[in-house]
Amino acid sequence: MVNYPKGVHQGQSAISNQMKVGKGTKRGLTFGKRGMGLEDEINAANDYYLADHLAVIHKKPTPVTIVKVDYPARSAAKITEAYFQKPSTTDYNGVYQGRYLDFDAKETKNKTVFPMKNIHEHQVQHLANVVSQGGIGFLLIKFTTLNQTYLYPAPELVAAWMQQEGRGSIQLKELVQQAYLVKASLNPSLDYLTAVDDYLADLESGRRSDRPQARGNHS
Amino acid sequence: MVNYPKGVHQGQSAISNQMKVGKGTKRGLTFGKRGMGLEDEINAANDYYLADHLAVIHKKPTPVTIVKVDYPARSAAKITEAYFQKPSTTDYNGVYQGRYLDFDAKETKNKTVFPMKNIHEHQVQHLANVVSQGGIGFLLIKFTTLNQTYLYPAPELVAAWMQQEGRGSIQLKELVQQAYLVKASLNPSLDYLTAVDDYLADLESGRRSDRPQARGNHS
Repeated sequence: MVNYPKGVHQGQSAISNQMKVGKGTKRGLTFGKRGMGLEDEINAANDYYLADHLAVIHKKPTPVTIVKVDYPARSAAKITEAYFQKPSTTDYNGVYQGRYLDFDAKETKNKTVFPMKNIHEHQVQHLANVVSQGGIGFLLIKFTTLNQTYLYPAPELVAAWMQQEGRGSIQLKELVQQAYLVKASLNPSLDYLTAVDDYLADLESGRRSDRPQARGNHS
Repeated sequence: MVNYPKGVHQGQSAISNQMKVGKGTKRGLTFGKRGMGLEDEINAANDYYLADHLAVIHKKPTPVTIVKVDYPARSAAKITEAYFQKPSTTDYNGVYQGRYLDFDAKETKNKTVFPMKNIHEHQVQHLANVVSQGGIGFLLIKFTTLNQTYLYPAPELVAAWMQQEGRGSIQLKELVQQAYLVKASLNPSLDYLTAVDDYLADLESGRRSDRPQARGNHS
Protein backbone atom coordinates (compact mmCIF):
# COMPACT_ATOMS: atom_id res chain seq x y z
CA MET A 1 0.00 0.00 0.00
CA VAL A 2 1.00 3.57 -0.62
CA ASN A 3 1.63 5.45 2.60
CA TYR A 4 1.05 9.15 2.47
CA PRO A 5 3.96 10.43 4.52
CA LYS A 6 2.80 12.09 7.69
CA GLY A 7 4.59 14.19 10.22
CA VAL A 8 7.45 16.26 8.95
CA HIS A 9 6.48 18.87 6.41
CA GLN A 10 7.56 22.19 5.03
CA GLY A 11 7.41 24.05 8.32
CA GLN A 12 9.93 21.90 10.10
CA SER A 13 13.66 22.13 9.50
CA ALA A 14 16.02 19.26 8.89
CA ILE A 15 18.00 20.33 11.92
CA SER A 16 15.13 19.92 14.36
CA ASN A 17 14.45 16.56 12.82
CA GLN A 18 17.92 15.30 13.49
CA MET A 19 16.82 15.11 17.11
CA LYS A 20 14.59 12.25 16.17
CA VAL A 21 17.35 9.91 15.10
CA GLY A 22 16.61 6.46 16.43
CA LYS A 23 12.90 6.31 15.69
CA GLY A 24 12.98 5.87 11.93
CA THR A 25 12.48 2.60 10.11
CA LYS A 26 15.09 2.24 7.37
CA ARG A 27 18.23 3.21 9.25
CA GLY A 28 21.01 0.67 9.37
CA LEU A 29 23.87 3.10 8.80
CA THR A 30 25.67 3.74 12.03
CA PHE A 31 29.34 2.89 12.15
CA GLY A 32 32.44 2.76 10.07
CA LYS A 33 31.57 5.27 7.37
CA ARG A 34 35.05 6.79 7.37
CA GLY A 35 36.20 5.03 4.26
CA MET A 36 33.03 5.45 2.19
CA GLY A 37 33.24 7.19 -1.13
CA LEU A 38 31.37 10.47 -1.51
CA GLU A 39 28.75 8.93 -3.76
CA ASP A 40 28.00 6.15 -1.26
CA GLU A 41 27.74 8.72 1.52
CA ILE A 42 25.28 10.81 -0.46
CA ASN A 43 23.20 7.78 -1.38
CA ALA A 44 23.10 6.71 2.28
CA ALA A 45 22.06 10.22 3.33
CA ASN A 46 19.33 10.24 0.64
CA ASP A 47 17.98 6.89 1.91
CA TYR A 48 17.93 8.31 5.40
CA TYR A 49 16.20 11.53 4.30
CA LEU A 50 13.60 9.58 2.35
CA ALA A 51 12.82 7.18 5.21
CA ASP A 52 12.46 10.08 7.66
CA HIS A 53 10.45 12.24 5.23
CA LEU A 54 13.08 14.96 5.29
CA ALA A 55 13.65 15.21 1.54
CA VAL A 56 13.10 13.27 -1.69
CA ILE A 57 16.44 13.25 -3.51
CA HIS A 58 17.61 10.56 -5.91
CA LYS A 59 20.68 9.86 -7.95
CA LYS A 60 19.93 9.75 -11.65
CA PRO A 61 20.72 6.54 -13.49
CA THR A 62 23.93 6.47 -15.54
CA PRO A 63 22.97 7.51 -19.08
CA VAL A 64 23.65 4.73 -21.58
CA THR A 65 23.07 4.44 -25.32
CA ILE A 66 21.59 1.02 -25.97
CA VAL A 67 22.49 -0.50 -29.33
CA LYS A 68 21.58 -4.20 -29.14
CA VAL A 69 19.15 -6.11 -26.97
CA ASP A 70 18.63 -9.88 -26.91
CA TYR A 71 15.31 -11.34 -25.86
CA PRO A 72 16.11 -14.90 -24.79
CA ALA A 73 13.06 -17.12 -24.34
CA ARG A 74 11.76 -17.12 -20.76
CA SER A 75 14.44 -14.73 -19.49
CA ALA A 76 14.78 -11.03 -19.00
CA ALA A 77 15.84 -8.88 -21.94
CA LYS A 78 19.63 -8.74 -22.11
CA ILE A 79 21.47 -5.68 -23.37
CA THR A 80 24.49 -6.92 -25.35
CA GLU A 81 25.83 -3.66 -26.76
CA ALA A 82 25.66 -0.28 -25.13
CA TYR A 83 27.88 2.73 -24.53
CA PHE A 84 28.25 5.28 -21.78
CA GLN A 85 26.92 8.73 -22.59
CA LYS A 86 28.21 12.00 -21.25
CA PRO A 87 25.70 13.14 -18.66
CA SER A 88 24.01 16.37 -19.77
CA THR A 89 22.98 17.37 -16.28
CA THR A 90 24.08 16.69 -12.71
CA ASP A 91 23.78 13.39 -10.86
CA TYR A 92 21.38 14.37 -8.08
CA ASN A 93 18.15 16.30 -7.83
CA GLY A 94 14.97 16.37 -5.81
CA VAL A 95 12.78 18.35 -3.46
CA TYR A 96 13.44 19.56 0.08
CA GLN A 97 10.77 21.52 1.94
CA GLY A 98 9.34 22.78 -1.32
CA ARG A 99 12.76 23.79 -2.72
CA TYR A 100 14.25 22.26 -5.83
CA LEU A 101 17.79 20.96 -5.13
CA ASP A 102 20.21 20.03 -7.91
CA PHE A 103 23.84 19.08 -7.40
CA ASP A 104 26.78 17.01 -8.40
CA ALA A 105 29.38 15.21 -6.28
CA LYS A 106 33.12 15.77 -6.82
CA GLU A 107 36.05 14.21 -5.05
CA THR A 108 39.64 15.41 -5.13
CA LYS A 109 42.81 14.28 -3.40
CA ASN A 110 44.23 17.76 -3.79
CA LYS A 111 44.85 19.54 -0.48
CA THR A 112 45.11 23.16 -1.61
CA VAL A 113 42.98 23.68 -4.72
CA PHE A 114 39.90 22.36 -6.50
CA PRO A 115 40.88 21.75 -10.14
CA MET A 116 38.31 23.00 -12.66
CA LYS A 117 38.84 19.93 -14.83
CA ASN A 118 36.67 18.04 -12.34
CA ILE A 119 33.61 19.77 -13.81
CA HIS A 120 32.18 19.57 -17.30
CA GLU A 121 30.99 22.73 -19.00
CA HIS A 122 27.51 21.31 -19.61
CA GLN A 123 27.18 20.69 -15.87
CA VAL A 124 28.05 24.31 -15.11
CA GLN A 125 25.55 25.41 -17.77
CA HIS A 126 22.90 23.15 -16.26
CA LEU A 127 23.48 24.56 -12.77
CA ALA A 128 23.25 28.11 -14.17
CA ASN A 129 19.91 27.20 -15.77
CA VAL A 130 18.68 25.72 -12.48
CA VAL A 131 19.58 28.85 -10.52
CA SER A 132 17.87 31.08 -13.07
CA GLN A 133 14.65 29.09 -12.51
CA GLY A 134 14.84 29.65 -8.76
CA GLY A 135 16.34 26.26 -7.94
CA ILE A 136 19.13 25.63 -5.43
CA GLY A 137 22.22 24.37 -7.26
CA PHE A 138 25.59 23.42 -5.84
CA LEU A 139 28.50 21.02 -5.84
CA LEU A 140 29.33 18.75 -2.94
CA ILE A 141 33.13 18.69 -3.03
CA LYS A 142 35.01 16.21 -0.89
CA PHE A 143 38.68 16.84 -0.22
CA THR A 144 39.44 13.22 0.52
CA THR A 145 42.91 13.79 2.00
CA LEU A 146 41.53 16.39 4.41
CA ASN A 147 38.34 14.36 4.96
CA GLN A 148 36.24 17.50 4.52
CA THR A 149 33.18 18.00 2.34
CA TYR A 150 31.88 21.40 1.28
CA LEU A 151 28.70 22.65 -0.30
CA TYR A 152 29.92 25.07 -2.98
CA PRO A 153 27.02 27.18 -4.31
CA ALA A 154 26.34 27.21 -8.06
CA PRO A 155 26.42 31.02 -8.46
CA GLU A 156 30.01 31.11 -7.19
CA LEU A 157 30.95 28.13 -9.34
CA VAL A 158 29.48 29.78 -12.44
CA ALA A 159 31.32 33.04 -11.70
CA ALA A 160 34.63 31.24 -11.17
CA TRP A 161 34.15 29.14 -14.29
CA MET A 162 33.34 32.15 -16.47
CA GLN A 163 36.23 34.20 -15.14
CA GLN A 164 38.73 31.39 -15.70
CA GLU A 165 37.08 30.04 -18.83
CA GLY A 166 36.91 26.59 -17.30
CA ARG A 167 40.65 26.35 -16.73
CA GLY A 168 42.94 26.29 -13.72
CA SER A 169 41.60 25.78 -10.27
CA ILE A 170 39.92 27.40 -7.29
CA GLN A 171 42.11 27.93 -4.22
CA LEU A 172 40.84 25.98 -1.24
CA LYS A 173 41.25 29.14 0.89
CA GLU A 174 38.87 31.05 -1.38
CA LEU A 175 36.47 28.13 -1.72
CA VAL A 176 36.19 27.76 2.05
CA GLN A 177 35.08 31.38 2.36
CA GLN A 178 32.33 30.90 -0.22
CA ALA A 179 31.27 27.38 0.72
CA TYR A 180 29.54 25.63 3.61
CA LEU A 181 31.32 22.87 5.48
CA VAL A 182 29.25 19.73 5.97
CA LYS A 183 29.74 19.25 9.69
CA ALA A 184 30.64 15.85 11.13
CA SER A 185 27.66 13.65 11.85
CA LEU A 186 27.05 10.06 12.79
CA ASN A 187 23.83 9.21 11.07
CA PRO A 188 23.79 9.88 8.21
CA SER A 189 27.58 10.19 8.04
CA LEU A 190 27.25 13.02 5.50
CA ASP A 191 24.29 15.07 6.69
CA TYR A 192 24.56 17.56 3.83
CA LEU A 193 21.08 19.00 4.38
CA THR A 194 22.49 20.90 7.37
CA ALA A 195 24.81 22.72 4.94
CA VAL A 196 21.81 23.31 2.66
CA ASP A 197 20.00 24.81 5.65
CA ASP A 198 22.93 27.17 6.28
CA TYR A 199 22.95 28.19 2.62
CA LEU A 200 19.18 28.72 2.50
CA ALA A 201 19.31 30.82 5.68
CA ASP A 202 21.94 33.07 4.09
CA LEU A 203 19.92 33.36 0.87
CA GLU A 204 16.75 34.18 2.76
CA SER A 205 18.39 36.76 5.01
CA GLY A 206 19.94 38.43 1.98
CA ARG A 207 23.48 37.75 3.27
CA ARG A 208 23.99 35.96 -0.01
CA SER A 209 22.67 36.36 -3.51
CA ASP A 210 21.69 33.57 -5.85
CA ARG A 211 23.34 35.56 -8.61
CA PRO A 212 27.10 35.32 -9.21
CA GLN A 213 29.09 38.08 -7.51
CA ALA A 214 32.09 40.00 -8.73
CA ARG A 215 35.17 38.36 -7.32
CA GLY A 216 38.83 39.08 -6.66
CA ASN A 217 41.76 37.72 -8.59
CA HIS A 218 42.98 34.25 -7.91
CA SER A 219 45.03 31.67 -9.70
CA MET B 1 31.15 29.46 -22.53
CA VAL B 2 28.47 29.22 -19.93
CA ASN B 3 25.65 31.64 -20.48
CA TYR B 4 23.79 32.74 -17.44
CA PRO B 5 20.22 32.78 -18.67
CA LYS B 6 18.76 36.24 -18.69
CA GLY B 7 15.26 37.48 -19.25
CA VAL B 8 12.46 35.26 -18.15
CA HIS B 9 12.35 34.58 -14.43
CA GLN B 10 10.02 33.69 -11.65
CA GLY B 11 7.69 36.63 -12.11
CA GLN B 12 6.66 35.84 -15.64
CA SER B 13 4.22 33.10 -16.57
CA ALA B 14 4.67 30.48 -19.23
CA ILE B 15 1.54 31.72 -20.92
CA SER B 16 2.82 35.24 -21.48
CA ASN B 17 6.01 33.74 -22.83
CA GLN B 18 4.22 31.81 -25.51
CA MET B 19 3.82 35.14 -27.23
CA LYS B 20 7.51 35.14 -27.92
CA VAL B 21 7.50 32.09 -30.16
CA GLY B 22 9.80 32.70 -33.07
CA LYS B 23 12.69 34.37 -31.29
CA GLY B 24 14.28 31.38 -29.56
CA THR B 25 17.34 29.60 -30.78
CA LYS B 26 16.83 25.85 -30.50
CA ARG B 27 13.41 25.56 -32.02
CA GLY B 28 13.03 23.31 -35.04
CA LEU B 29 9.68 21.79 -34.05
CA THR B 30 6.92 23.27 -36.08
CA PHE B 31 4.91 20.88 -38.21
CA GLY B 32 3.59 17.40 -38.31
CA LYS B 33 3.55 16.57 -34.61
CA ARG B 34 0.20 14.77 -34.80
CA GLY B 35 1.63 11.30 -34.82
CA MET B 36 4.31 11.82 -32.15
CA GLY B 37 4.30 9.61 -29.09
CA LEU B 38 3.68 11.26 -25.75
CA GLU B 39 7.30 10.87 -24.68
CA ASP B 40 8.59 12.55 -27.85
CA GLU B 41 6.12 15.38 -27.34
CA ILE B 42 7.27 15.91 -23.75
CA ASN B 43 10.93 15.81 -24.75
CA ALA B 44 10.28 18.36 -27.51
CA ALA B 45 8.41 20.60 -25.05
CA ASN B 46 11.29 20.31 -22.55
CA ASP B 47 13.82 21.31 -25.23
CA TYR B 48 11.65 24.29 -26.05
CA TYR B 49 11.27 25.28 -22.39
CA LEU B 50 15.01 24.99 -21.81
CA ALA B 51 15.94 27.06 -24.87
CA ASP B 52 13.47 29.78 -23.90
CA HIS B 53 14.44 29.70 -20.19
CA LEU B 54 10.90 28.76 -19.18
CA ALA B 55 11.77 25.66 -17.18
CA VAL B 56 14.57 23.12 -16.66
CA ILE B 57 12.97 19.69 -16.95
CA HIS B 58 14.76 16.54 -18.09
CA LYS B 59 13.85 12.93 -18.66
CA LYS B 60 15.84 10.62 -16.45
CA PRO B 61 18.00 8.02 -18.18
CA THR B 62 16.65 4.47 -18.34
CA PRO B 63 18.02 2.64 -15.30
CA VAL B 64 20.25 -0.23 -16.29
CA THR B 65 22.28 -2.74 -14.25
CA ILE B 66 25.67 -3.04 -15.89
CA VAL B 67 27.32 -6.45 -15.54
CA LYS B 68 30.19 -6.55 -18.06
CA VAL B 69 32.20 -3.82 -19.74
CA ASP B 70 34.90 -4.26 -22.39
CA TYR B 71 37.66 -1.72 -22.80
CA PRO B 72 38.94 -2.18 -26.34
CA ALA B 73 42.23 -0.41 -27.06
CA ARG B 74 41.73 3.06 -28.53
CA SER B 75 37.92 2.85 -28.45
CA ALA B 76 35.19 3.79 -26.07
CA ALA B 77 34.26 1.40 -23.27
CA LYS B 78 31.65 -1.07 -24.53
CA ILE B 79 28.97 -2.50 -22.26
CA THR B 80 28.47 -6.14 -23.27
CA GLU B 81 26.07 -7.32 -20.59
CA ALA B 82 23.42 -5.25 -18.87
CA TYR B 83 19.79 -5.54 -17.81
CA PHE B 84 16.88 -3.15 -17.53
CA GLN B 85 15.92 -2.15 -13.99
CA LYS B 86 12.49 -1.21 -12.75
CA PRO B 87 12.46 2.56 -12.33
CA SER B 88 12.00 3.51 -8.66
CA THR B 89 10.77 7.00 -9.40
CA THR B 90 9.07 8.85 -12.26
CA ASP B 91 10.63 9.66 -15.61
CA TYR B 92 10.63 13.45 -15.48
CA ASN B 93 11.55 16.09 -12.96
CA GLY B 94 12.91 19.59 -12.79
CA VAL B 95 12.31 23.17 -11.76
CA TYR B 96 9.78 25.70 -13.04
CA GLN B 97 9.70 29.20 -11.57
CA GLY B 98 11.12 27.92 -8.31
CA ARG B 99 8.67 24.99 -8.08
CA TYR B 100 9.78 21.38 -8.12
CA LEU B 101 7.89 19.42 -10.79
CA ASP B 102 7.85 15.62 -10.90
CA PHE B 103 5.76 13.52 -13.25
CA ASP B 104 5.38 10.47 -15.37
CA ALA B 105 3.90 10.03 -18.85
CA LYS B 106 1.20 7.45 -19.54
CA GLU B 107 -0.53 6.58 -22.79
CA THR B 108 -3.71 4.56 -23.18
CA LYS B 109 -5.84 3.63 -26.17
CA ASN B 110 -8.83 3.28 -23.88
CA LYS B 111 -11.60 5.78 -24.60
CA THR B 112 -13.61 5.63 -21.37
CA VAL B 113 -11.31 4.73 -18.49
CA PHE B 114 -7.69 5.00 -17.33
CA PRO B 115 -6.61 1.53 -16.18
CA MET B 116 -4.67 1.52 -12.90
CA LYS B 117 -2.32 -1.14 -14.23
CA ASN B 118 -0.59 1.62 -16.19
CA ILE B 119 1.00 2.83 -12.93
CA HIS B 120 3.44 1.05 -10.65
CA GLU B 121 2.95 1.24 -6.92
CA HIS B 122 6.46 2.62 -6.35
CA GLN B 123 5.66 5.49 -8.70
CA VAL B 124 2.53 6.34 -6.73
CA GLN B 125 4.56 6.17 -3.51
CA HIS B 126 7.21 8.42 -5.03
CA LEU B 127 4.62 11.00 -6.09
CA ALA B 128 3.10 10.91 -2.59
CA ASN B 129 6.57 11.57 -1.14
CA VAL B 130 7.09 14.45 -3.55
CA VAL B 131 3.79 16.09 -2.63
CA SER B 132 4.56 15.75 1.08
CA GLN B 133 7.79 17.71 0.50
CA GLY B 134 5.89 20.54 -1.18
CA GLY B 135 6.65 19.44 -4.74
CA ILE B 136 4.17 19.44 -7.64
CA GLY B 137 3.52 15.87 -8.75
CA PHE B 138 1.25 14.62 -11.51
CA LEU B 139 0.75 12.25 -14.40
CA LEU B 140 0.49 13.39 -17.99
CA ILE B 141 -2.06 10.95 -19.42
CA LYS B 142 -2.61 10.81 -23.15
CA PHE B 143 -5.79 9.18 -24.42
CA THR B 144 -4.36 8.42 -27.84
CA THR B 145 -7.65 7.52 -29.51
CA LEU B 146 -9.22 10.78 -28.34
CA ASN B 147 -5.97 12.69 -28.98
CA GLN B 148 -6.33 14.39 -25.59
CA THR B 149 -3.70 14.77 -22.88
CA TYR B 150 -4.51 15.59 -19.26
CA LEU B 151 -2.48 16.67 -16.26
CA TYR B 152 -3.82 14.46 -13.46
CA PRO B 153 -2.62 15.74 -10.06
CA ALA B 154 -0.76 13.37 -7.74
CA PRO B 155 -3.03 13.90 -4.70
CA GLU B 156 -6.05 12.65 -6.68
CA LEU B 157 -4.02 9.76 -8.10
CA VAL B 158 -2.87 8.74 -4.63
CA ALA B 159 -6.43 8.92 -3.28
CA ALA B 160 -7.81 6.82 -6.15
CA TRP B 161 -4.98 4.31 -5.86
CA MET B 162 -5.45 3.88 -2.11
CA GLN B 163 -9.24 3.58 -2.38
CA GLN B 164 -9.01 0.96 -5.11
CA GLU B 165 -5.84 -0.69 -3.82
CA GLY B 166 -4.17 -0.23 -7.16
CA ARG B 167 -6.83 -2.17 -9.06
CA GLY B 168 -9.51 -1.38 -11.60
CA SER B 169 -9.57 1.93 -13.36
CA ILE B 170 -10.52 5.57 -13.14
CA GLN B 171 -13.50 6.65 -15.22
CA LEU B 172 -12.54 9.21 -17.84
CA LYS B 173 -15.58 11.28 -16.77
CA GLU B 174 -14.28 11.51 -13.23
CA LEU B 175 -10.69 12.05 -14.32
CA VAL B 176 -11.70 14.97 -16.55
CA GLN B 177 -13.29 16.72 -13.57
CA GLN B 178 -10.12 16.40 -11.50
CA ALA B 179 -7.58 16.94 -14.25
CA TYR B 180 -6.37 19.77 -16.49
CA LEU B 181 -6.61 19.42 -20.24
CA VAL B 182 -3.42 20.34 -22.08
CA LYS B 183 -4.87 22.71 -24.67
CA ALA B 184 -3.91 22.43 -28.32
CA SER B 185 -0.77 24.31 -29.24
CA LEU B 186 1.54 24.55 -32.22
CA ASN B 187 4.92 25.06 -30.70
CA PRO B 188 5.59 23.11 -28.62
CA SER B 189 2.88 20.71 -29.72
CA LEU B 190 2.30 19.66 -26.11
CA ASP B 191 2.59 22.86 -24.10
CA TYR B 192 1.95 21.14 -20.78
CA LEU B 193 3.24 24.04 -18.69
CA THR B 194 -0.04 25.84 -19.43
CA ALA B 195 -1.85 23.00 -17.60
CA VAL B 196 0.72 23.28 -14.78
CA ASP B 197 -0.10 27.02 -14.61
CA ASP B 198 -3.82 26.19 -14.30
CA TYR B 199 -3.08 23.69 -11.54
CA LEU B 200 -0.77 26.07 -9.65
CA ALA B 201 -3.37 28.85 -9.87
CA ASP B 202 -5.96 26.54 -8.30
CA LEU B 203 -3.54 25.46 -5.57
CA GLU B 204 -2.58 29.04 -4.78
CA SER B 205 -6.15 30.32 -4.70
CA GLY B 206 -7.12 27.47 -2.39
CA ARG B 207 -9.62 26.08 -4.92
CA ARG B 208 -7.62 22.89 -4.67
CA SER B 209 -5.64 21.19 -1.96
CA ASP B 210 -2.37 19.37 -2.42
CA ARG B 211 -3.69 16.75 -0.04
CA PRO B 212 -5.91 13.94 -1.29
CA GLN B 213 -9.62 14.62 -0.88
CA ALA B 214 -12.42 12.29 0.10
CA ARG B 215 -14.04 11.08 -3.09
CA GLY B 216 -17.28 9.48 -4.24
CA ASN B 217 -17.75 5.90 -5.34
CA HIS B 218 -16.70 4.87 -8.77
CA SER B 219 -15.92 1.67 -10.52
